[in-house]
Order: sequence, then structure tokens, then C-alpha cells
Amino acid sequence: MGSVFGTLFRVSTWGESHGVSVGGVVDGCPPRIPLTREEIQKELDRRRPGQSDIVTPRNEADEVEILSGIYNGLTLGTPIAFEVRNKDQRGGAYDNQKDVFRPSHADFTYQSKFGIRAVEGGGRASARETLARVAAGAIARKMLQMAANVRIVAYVERVQDIAMPELDEAPLEADVEATAVRCPHPDSAARMIERIKAVRAEGDSVGGVIRCHLQNVPAGLGEPVFDRLEADLAKAMLSIPATKGFEFGSGFAGTLLKGSEHNDIYISKEGRIGTVTNRSGGIQGGISDGEEISFRVAFKPTATILRRQETVDREGKPAEILAKGRHDPCVLPRAVPIVEAMAALVLADHALRNAAQNTFLRL
Amino acid sequence: MGSVFGTLFRVSTWGESHGVSVGGVVDGCPPRIPLTREEIQKELDRRRPGQSDIVTPRNEADEVEILSGIYNGLTLGTPIAFEVRNKDQRGGAYDNQKDVFRPSHADFTYQSKFGIRAVEGGGRASARETLARVAAGAIARKMLQMAANVRIVAYVERVQDIAMPELDEAPLEADVEATAVRCPHPDSAARMIERIKAVRAEGDSVGGVIRCHLQNVPAGLGEPVFDRLEADLAKAMLSIPATKGFEFGSGFAGTLLKGSEHNDIYISKEGRIGTVTNRSGGIQGGISDGEEISFRVAFKPTATILRRQETVDREGKPAEILAKGRHDPCVLPRAVPIVEAMAALVLADHALRNAAQNTFLRL
Amino acid sequence: MGSVFGTLFRVSTWGESHGVSVGGVVDGCPPRIPLTREEIQKELDRRRPGQSDIVTPRNEADEVEILSGIYNGLTLGTPIAFEVRNKDQRGGAYDNQKDVFRPSHADFTYQSKFGIRAVEGGGRASARETLARVAAGAIARKMLQMAANVRIVAYVERVQDIAMPELDEAPLEADVEATAVRCPHPDSAARMIERIKAVRAEGDSVGGVIRCHLQNVPAGLGEPVFDRLEADLAKAMLSIPATKGFEFGSGFAGTLLKGSEHNDIYISKEGRIGTVTNRSGGIQGGISDGEEISFRVAFKPTATILRRQETVDREGKPAEILAKGRHDPCVLPRAVPIVEAMAALVLADHALRNAAQNTFLRL
Amino acid sequence: MGSVFGTLFRVSTWGESHGVSVGGVVDGCPPRIPLTREEIQKELDRRRPGQSDIVTPRNEADEVEILSGIYNGLTLGTPIAFEVRNKDQRGGAYDNQKDVFRPSHADFTYQSKFGIRAVEGGGRASARETLARVAAGAIARKMLQMAANVRIVAYVERVQDIAMPELDEAPLEADVEATAVRCPHPDSAARMIERIKAVRAEGDSVGGVIRCHLQNVPAGLGEPVFDRLEADLAKAMLSIPATKGFEFGSGFAGTLLKGSEHNDIYISKEGRIGTVTNRSGGIQGGISDGEEISFRVAFKPTATILRRQETVDREGKPAEILAKGRHDPCVLPRAVPIVEAMAALVLADHALRNAAQNTFLRL
Repeated sequence: MGSVFGTLFRVSTWGESHGVSVGGVVDGCPPRIPLTREEIQKELDRRRPGQSDIVTPRNEADEVEILSGIYNGLTLGTPIAFEVRNKDQRGGAYDNQKDVFRPSHADFTYQSKFGIRAVEGGGRASARETLARVAAGAIARKMLQMAANVRIVAYVERVQDIAMPELDEAPLEADVEATAVRCPHPDSAARMIERIKAVRAEGDSVGGVIRCHLQNVPAGLGEPVFDRLEADLAKAMLSIPATKGFEFGSGFAGTLLKGSEHNDIYISKEGRIGTVTNRSGGIQGGISDGEEISFRVAFKPTATILRRQETVDREGKPAEILAKGRHDPCVLPRAVPIVEAMAALVLADHALRNAAQNTFLRL
Repeated sequence: MGSVFGTLFRVSTWGESHGVSVGGVVDGCPPRIPLTREEIQKELDRRRPGQSDIVTPRNEADEVEILSGIYNGLTLGTPIAFEVRNKDQRGGAYDNQKDVFRPSHADFTYQSKFGIRAVEGGGRASARETLARVAAGAIARKMLQMAANVRIVAYVERVQDIAMPELDEAPLEADVEATAVRCPHPDSAARMIERIKAVRAEGDSVGGVIRCHLQNVPAGLGEPVFDRLEADLAKAMLSIPATKGFEFGSGFAGTLLKGSEHNDIYISKEGRIGTVTNRSGGIQGGISDGEEISFRVAFKPTATILRRQETVDREGKPAEILAKGRHDPCVLPRAVPIVEAMAALVLADHALRNAAQNTFLRL
Repeated sequence: MGSVFGTLFRVSTWGESHGVSVGGVVDGCPPRIPLTREEIQKELDRRRPGQSDIVTPRNEADEVEILSGIYNGLTLGTPIAFEVRNKDQRGGAYDNQKDVFRPSHADFTYQSKFGIRAVEGGGRASARETLARVAAGAIARKMLQMAANVRIVAYVERVQDIAMPELDEAPLEADVEATAVRCPHPDSAARMIERIKAVRAEGDSVGGVIRCHLQNVPAGLGEPVFDRLEADLAKAMLSIPATKGFEFGSGFAGTLLKGSEHNDIYISKEGRIGTVTNRSGGIQGGISDGEEISFRVAFKPTATILRRQETVDREGKPAEILAKGRHDPCVLPRAVPIVEAMAALVLADHALRNAAQNTFLRL
Repeated sequence: MGSVFGTLFRVSTWGESHGVSVGGVVDGCPPRIPLTREEIQKELDRRRPGQSDIVTPRNEADEVEILSGIYNGLTLGTPIAFEVRNKDQRGGAYDNQKDVFRPSHADFTYQSKFGIRAVEGGGRASARETLARVAAGAIARKMLQMAANVRIVAYVERVQDIAMPELDEAPLEADVEATAVRCPHPDSAARMIERIKAVRAEGDSVGGVIRCHLQNVPAGLGEPVFDRLEADLAKAMLSIPATKGFEFGSGFAGTLLKGSEHNDIYISKEGRIGTVTNRSGGIQGGISDGEEISFRVAFKPTATILRRQETVDREGKPAEILAKGRHDPCVLPRAVPIVEAMAALVLADHALRNAAQNTFLRL
């Protein structure tokens, strides 16, 4: 269980790191939306291994094939399935991981829960599964763009202690994509890249913070009580491997302010009601207010490090492990499109839920 | 939509701040669990208005009535419904809020989404709905206690900039309940209470951070990919009114460490496999590892302040608003049982999901 | 589990036959729909015990109270809860049922599944729970009426072997309500009533068939593959106590025809495309086609009979049981509003699901 | 929406008749169940076109590939995906169906709902999608067999008016598979085959009734109120293309009996409590009672006939249509494994739901 996401825009994914394929099926995408394989591939390319000299060199082109749901370039309204065949399938490179648990990986918990696990590359626990999220997110994104020109932009705001200056609103995508680390502030980006290379040289790893902005989200998305927009965004973000925290709007820092300093005052803005400041992060009472939505996601340093580590084997006896091969010394550059994709899935689902209620009387 | 929570331990809640009643129905609680009205009432009393001199004086005893699902003191396995009748029903005290939007409240977003709203006390957007969560949480808690002696302890760790020292593990409940602010560190508690009284005297408000510990959670709870335990905890916490952020284990601070500093090394512990440190916060790859689970939740300063604020009316014309009456200058003391309740709901649901898979072959 | 129905128009019900109350909460009803307590009560009155001399004389007024979700006569878009307090609560009248299993009742299966059961009146297995369905159905019905003037009419078509002539389309509600047995054909109704009284005099019971027509359902409701409109109608109907079968359109009799005799030919009808015949029952490929939808539901003879029956006790030892007190010698007259209510719940849910997809691009 | 089935054993399917592939993903299958590709293929072969001289000659080997979720011959507890690539992809053979609606097919309703449809072979509305159900059902079946040796046997009981004698319990699979029509009564089978060939020679088609028996289902499966076992079976069966009705146990015929004739008397049976007769069809109050479960499903005559039929085009103008090519003159022989598969999916889901509640306290 647990590999299905969404109520109306429902995504079901499959695939282990070194299995036959990784893929997904989207049930609930409205009909007659123009969609091409290239629009999905473009997002997968942003998440692809081997895309720059600061990410894992694992050799996977990650070419997606659409299996159903598109007809003459338009969505049919029925399930859209897609898959990426794994080129780098099962081999013997992981024999040393069969009987010992890698620290801060899911080996032990999968073994505890299921009594079995696909050893190679972490199996289902590998971040490789996120390619299905990115593909599904590309579909959601296209739908949101068609409906309301929604814009979703994430970027690396901080690597370890190297932080770019805080932005008031979303940067240009081109500025994000301009650097290998996906930080739109060139000076900070250069320092981040230098840091990543330095820790990699030490066989170590780093984490950091990704920030994401959602623009042109109409007021009214989100549901009272449990399915608040920020709650579903939080779930979506914390479902991404290696995440440790989520905050939106003023976040944890907002707890230092008094109410009189924190409240966002309403004003009239170009024919709509808006707020002067945006400490609310575009969401009030769980529902979007028409202002830009922004949030941050914390990522831990990559658990795989190229150093000898102590651990135990399946019987609990002391053992040592030394990772071989390829890994990301910092997951953030490749996590940017994943954050965007998960945000798109949440918005798409809430947009459909909102459409159901608010257009019903025009049935 | 949005007032239903959970997959197997499913809670559906209802009620506006000043409507007839607030209540809920739990579908999925296993049969034959001893449960009394008093066990539920005890938790409601911890969330009750008027419980101390630092919370709202709204006069509500919040007495719960169980409507179904209990028979001779045992759960039947069929829906358990409960309700609290509102004593303080609709009145004219809120006339000034009918046509203007309170800053950083949900008035505007509810009006945008639904084209109608229950004005008094915020209607469905009022934190009064959380009493149904606390009642449902009490049921979940009893179930978890019976099954594995699970212990759930939350407390106020910080009010504005006043932080207690960080704890290594859960404090005693008695120490949490010993102070009106629900901070188990008496000196910090005294300063927090002083601060809350000071801002109230100014007609202002403050926020802060609640920390929560989950003990005796068996390894194996949580599902791969989307329904990770931390993801569902994040959703649960961000669904609580006034929350701005969530982090578990090392959280945002963990992003400053290197992998070699952050990884938790496995060792053998009293017949089970555990970790030396616990930066993972008791969860690896979305699944509990048997260590203590801990997380933090950020709460903004209460939006209601007793000061004149600028805003707009429904036509977007400038207006002023001055809150009358009763409010919490700091929501955190009363939010402690809400955080615990939501954590209990998440654990109960995942415990049942896990039981389904892992005990199936013993059908 | 199992007491929640629907995806977008979601109903959660509670209550045992002799518990404190029976009620429900509807999450997902769109906002701004005019709704009164009386509209719900009117449907409950049609299902009420004691309404005529051919139904159970159990003395319950079944007065409903709305607990939330209505404001100034309009739905708020947030949960609508309602309850009926049981007047006739737990007593000693059922002591003889505590240790023996009534034939063709749920006593044994509830005991097997839950290891506990509310003995009095069947507890949760009592058809008394259906009053929550009827109340929820009244809300769905109002919504459907507002949106598309949907008309839902069920009636008793057959009692045991006494069948009224087959109708081509829905009769008038007034004609259905004109007889105590809810059969719109007066001669048949008279014979049915006579039969019911005769079997009651013998301490016996009878079953029969209810037919239901849905008019003005727009083309396009229903989803491909699993959530077909007829599939969800079948589930809804078979979830009603005492049902044994479901068929729509030509049903089982249609299996005797050849394809050339069974196919419905398309023609142009008053500006829309329709069919000459309607063996499809208004549904093609799981989706409504704009023609009248019709289906039949089979009800078994009431399991409670006033005759001595053999059975076993909880240890499997031979025992005898003799029902005392009040029961329906034929459930069909009171089941008519239940069939209508369940049909309304299915249509409401599918109407909202359809609205989500088809109006999304007009977000 | 609508292509996802189940709560805990959740199946999501995809694929159009002439698209790239038809497949599905099962999320929720417990871990460590032995499962091979051949076990799935075996069931697909029973549903395959071209298997005998009374079914469609469409040339598809329908070879399944498992994409994920199996490791060293055992299920991993994570999603099991599978697909069948279509050999017979899009061509020009269906040009005559682009602008006209085939009588009693889903062309018109899909066009009405989605404003677009995959013309070739009915696209998503084609019964070709059922191969994903059969594959998923094979997984469910294996799981049920491992857990409780559950046995699922369906067969053709009637073709048009040719009915085999009613059986008291499930026949042998070998007897079902012994005839091309999947009727275990050789004389009836011969007459059914003759009839099918005769109507095919006329360019016509026939329908009939499939009966299904479920053996060794433990008492306790099914949930009160909405998710009754018979309700979910009814939904599952009515979701199969071409179905018109469902009945279980005594079914429609049971409505002719009196209560005293219909009730099943309890007795002690080899150490368990059972019933003398089984008009209840193995289910009481929505929950299995340990007796054999049996039900019937009505299938209409195939809508595709090789005769000229009147219809309309998309503008509602009169048109004619003459089907070309390959079709089943009677869908029942190939529908037998589909009925079994859907029954397996329902039982698997309820088995897991029951395991969740009843084993929880042994967490």
C-alpha cells in the first residue's frame, strides 16, 4: 500500500531501482488537453542522472514511453500510463548490501516491515521511483497551465550553510536552469557547486533547502479541516525521499513575530482582494487566497557516503559497510523537478475537487 | 469535502463554532477495546476553553456524549460517534464581522470558495472543530495503548523566542500538565506564561513551537512512496489551524550537517536492532524503525488581536475591524492535546494498515 | 469499516438499533443549496415505522435534527450532520436473543467477525441504520433536483408472486404514495396488501421486487471500467438489508434475446440523440446516455417470523427461538424510500465527479 | 476516473483496445507470496481471443510481462505492475465508426462525456481492458489460495434459453474447461455451442448467465452497512462489460418464497456452526458465514452484430452501420475467467480489511 496519490487526479506508481521498469498511471486527468511525450520527457531530463558533474553518473537515459490515454495528441479522459525501462538492471554490484543495513537508509525498515527486500540500489526505497512522480507531475502541470496559467518554480535556496538571498517572488525558470545546482543566484550557485565538489572529494555528502513558488493559483483551492492545501503540500513534500521538514509562508521564523507583526492586511488589488504582505504564504484557513503560494522543503545530506561505516547485519552482529559506485553527493539539484512535480499533483487534485463543488450547479 | 481523515481508522467530523454541535464518527476502530466516556472527556478537558488564565475565557464545558459504537464498555467494531453540543450558540456578537474580512483569518477564503460562510466565530474555520479531533484521537490512543503500549507526549518547547532546553526523549505527562502553558521545564514555563500575559495586555498575540514524541511505536509502520509515516504526520500537523511548519528528527537543522555527521549507526540493543543516534527521528524510508519518533510543529501568533486593524469589505472597499471578546493570546497550550490527537490518528491508521498486510497469511 | 459511502458526496453513518442515536454526516455537498429540516423529515416519514397497518408498529417518530452545515437555510459547503435520537432504547426484551442465533439474520456473522455484538434489535445490523441513508439521500436529492431537475421514483412492482403490469416509464409519486404498499397500480396494490396481511396472520413473511426509475439524468454520468454507473447502483442496492439481486434495463430477461433484438437504435430526439427502445436502461458502457434509467431490486422475505424456529446457541448446541414483538411482515413498502435514497447518493456522487472533469478547463 | 478498484488490495488499470499496451498495477498485495509469470499467463490464456472456434479470431497472444514487485519468485509487498503489449494496434479498419455511433455500444456515451474517444475497437470501452482485471485477479487468487485455500469457480450456466441443471455446489475446474463454452454439463455445453454457431452464421449474437461459487471463504469477510460483501461483489460484476444483472443465493427466485420457507436453519457442522440450506448464498448481513458463496451474473447478447443497423452520426443525422471483422458471437465463454478475477479482487480486498481489524490487537 501507499503507492497511490490523490483523490480525483489519482496517480499510482510502480518500480524498483533495478527492476524491469519504473512507471505510473494517472487516472482522472480531464479530456482534450494537448499533451506530448516530449513535455513529459523534458521534465524527466531535469531529474535524470548524469546530467551534470555534480550528480550521480549512473547511466540512464530515462526515456519515457506513453502507454495509453493520449489520442491524436489529446488526453482521452481515461488513464494515462507511462513507463521508463531500466537499462541498468539487476547485477552483482550490490552483493555486499544483502546482509548488512546501510546507515540512515531504508534497508532495515523494509526488511522489518516486509520480511523481504529488493537489495539492489534500495529497490522500491530508491529515489529512482521519483521519476514516475516527475512524469505524472508533467501531466498535472500541463493541465494547470491550460486551466489557469499556473506557474510552478522551485530552486535550491541553500546548500548546507550556503544560502542565497531570500526572494520576494518566483524567479525565472531560465535563471534556475542556468546553473548545475539549480540556484538562480549565480554567486551563491558557484559557492554551492564548489561545496558539493569538495564534500564529494571527501567521500561525504551535504543537504539543504529547496524553495518553491506557485503563481496564478486561483483563490478557493483547498478544503476545510483535514485536506487543507498546506496539509496536502506538506504530505506531498515529506513523501519525497531524504526530506526532513516543510514550512510555508513565514514558516518557523514566523513564530518569532507577534500577531500585530504577522497578520497580512487586506487591500484592493487590480480588481481583486489581496494582501499587502504575504506571511500567510498564499493560504488562509487551508484555502488559497489568490496570492503567490510559497514553501520550503528541508533535505538531509545523502545517506550514501563513500566512507567505511559501522553497522549491523540481519542478526544484529557488528559489521562494516563501504558503499561502492555512483551516488549524488547532494540530492537537491535533481530534487527541484520532484518538488515541482509533487506540488503540481497537489494543485491538480485540489483544482478538480474545487471544480466539482463550484461548477456543480452548472451541470 | 476534506472533513474525512484516514484510510482504515477513518474519522469524519462536523460542526461550526456556533452551530448546534461539533462531533465526529470513527469508522474502523477494532472491536472489543475497553473505552469509556471519561477517557474521551479527559482529553477534551485538556483542550477546553477557560481551563487557565492564559487561554480564552469562552464558557464551554465541552461535555461529550457517545452516540454509538460502545456496548457494555467495549467497542463494537462498528462506527463510534460522539458529539459536543454548543452552549454558546449563534448570537449578534459577530455582526461587525459579517461584511469585513479579518486579517489572516479564513473569512475571505471561505467566502471566495463557497460564496457563503457562517460568520459567527469563524464557523467551520474556527479551531473549535478540533475538539472532534481530540475526541477521535482519544479513541485512537486507547487502541494504540492496548496494542503496543504506545505513548504520545507533546509539549510547548518554545513561545516566541523563549525556548526550553532540548530534550533527548519524551518528558513525563505530569510534568507537561504541571504548568498552564504545558511546558515541562518549569523555569521556561514561567517565562512563557509571563510573555503570554504581557502580549495579551498589549492586545497582541504570540506563537511558538510544539514538540511531540511517540514512544513504543513498533518497527514497520508507514508505507513506501506516498503514504510514508512522516508524510502522513506532516499532513496531520499542517491540518491543524494556525500551523506553519513541520520537521521531524534532525529537521531543518539537520541540513547543516554532512552525511558522515548525520547518519545514524545501527547497533544491537536489548535484543533488537537500533541506532546509536536518532537524527532520523525514528523513521527511515517512510517506515518506523522502532526508535522514538519525534517531530516539531510551528504555530503562528493568533490572528485575532484586540487592536484596530485595516482591512477591506466584501466589495474590496477599505474598512476597519476591532475584535471584541474572547480569544487565546497564544494557541499553543490548548494545541498540545490536538497535536497528540492527530499523531494518534496517524499511528492508528498505519497500525491497522500494517496489520492488514502482515497478518494476512494468518487469516 | 464500511460505513462510509461515496467519493465526492461522502456519507458516513452511525448508530445501532437501540443505541443513543442513528445519524450521519455528508461531506461534499456543494454550497448555497436551499435545504430545510422538513425536506429531510418528509423522506424519513416515508420510511418510519408505524406509518400504516402493514408495517411494524414500533413506536418511533424518527424526528431528525440537523447538527451542522446549514446556515440561513442554505448549505455551507461544509459537512452536514444530522441525527435521530432513539426513543426506544436498550431494554430486556431481547434477552432471548443473547445466546442464540436467529436464522437468516446477521447475529452469527457479526459474532464471528467482531467477537461481540449489540444484541438488541440486531444492533448495527438492524435496518434501522437505513434512516441515516434516507436523510442523506434527501440532501442528495435536493441537490440533483436543483442541478438538473432529476426525478427519482421507486415503487413496489411485485410482492411474492403478485406483480403489477410493467410500466414504460416512471409513475407519478402521488400514485405510489396513494397505497400503503407503495404500488402505483391500485388493483395490484390491493392484492399485495391482502397477501401481506394474510402472511402476517400466519406469523410468516414475504418479499418481492422494487423497481426504480431515474429521470432527467444528463448524459455523461458514470466512469469507465470499475466505477460504472450501473456498478455503483448495484453496490448501493445490494448494500440495503434483505436484498438478493439487482438488474437494470432488460436485466436477466434480456439474456433471452438475440443481439439483433436487444440493441437500441439511435435516433434524433427533440434536439438530442436518443434511442428508440431502452433495453440498455439508460446506461451504455457504464455512462448515462440521457434516456430514463431503470432498475429492479429483489428483496427476500423478512427473516423475522413469529414462528418457533430451530437454531443453535453460541456453542453450537441445538436451541429454539421464537421472535417476540414487532416486525415488518414485508419490508418493501418501507424500502421504497431507501432505494430512492441510495440511488440519489450514487447520482450525486457521479454528478460531482463528472462536474470535476468536465468543467475543469473553465476553472 | 474510475479505473481504480479496492481499498487495501488496490488495482489501477490502463489501456485502450488498440493502444500501446493494456496493463495494471496492484498496490497492497502482502509480501512473501510465491508468484510466477506463468500463474498470471495461465488465466490470461483462458480469456484470450482465438482460443476456440466460438470466440473472436482476433490474433493476440496476450503475453504478459511483470514489470515490478516480484523478487526471486516472491512478492515484495510493493506494487506489482504488469502489461500486455498490443500486437494489433491502430489501423484504418475502423474508419467507418469514426462518425457514427454503434447501437448499444459506448461510442455515444464516451463522446458525450469526454468530447473525444479512441475510435478503434471501442478504445477504453473495449472489453480488451478486462485482461488487466484477469491478471490482477490471478494475483489475488494466489494470495487467497495461500491464506485459506479459497477456491473460485465460475461457469456458463445458461446461453439464451439453454440452461444446464442447477448445481448444489461448485463443479470441478477441469469439467468447466473441458468444453469450449465453459459449461461443466456436457450435454448442455454441446447445445450451447451449437446455438452460438447458429447465431453467428446469422450474423447475430446471444447472451446468458454465468454462475460463480466461492469455496472455503472464512466466516467474517465483509463490512457492515455499505461495504457488504454482496454489495462489493455486485459492483464488481456489474463493472464487467455487457452485464445486466446480479443475484446471490436464492436471488430473484427467492422473492417467491415465504420467510418460513426461505430462512436457513443453523446447525453444528464438523466443529463449526453452519446452515442446513444455503438460500443466503453464504452471506448474512453483508458478512460471509463460512458456507459456500454463490451468485449469478446476466450478460446481454453481444452488441456487435454482422448486420446492417440504423443509427445516427455525431450531428444526429440518420446513418447506417455494418460491423466488419472479428467479434464474439457470445461473450460468456471468455467472461468466465473475468467473473472469477473480479470475485478474487473483492475477496482479497475484504480479506485484508478483515485482517486489519481482527489481528490488530496482536500487532
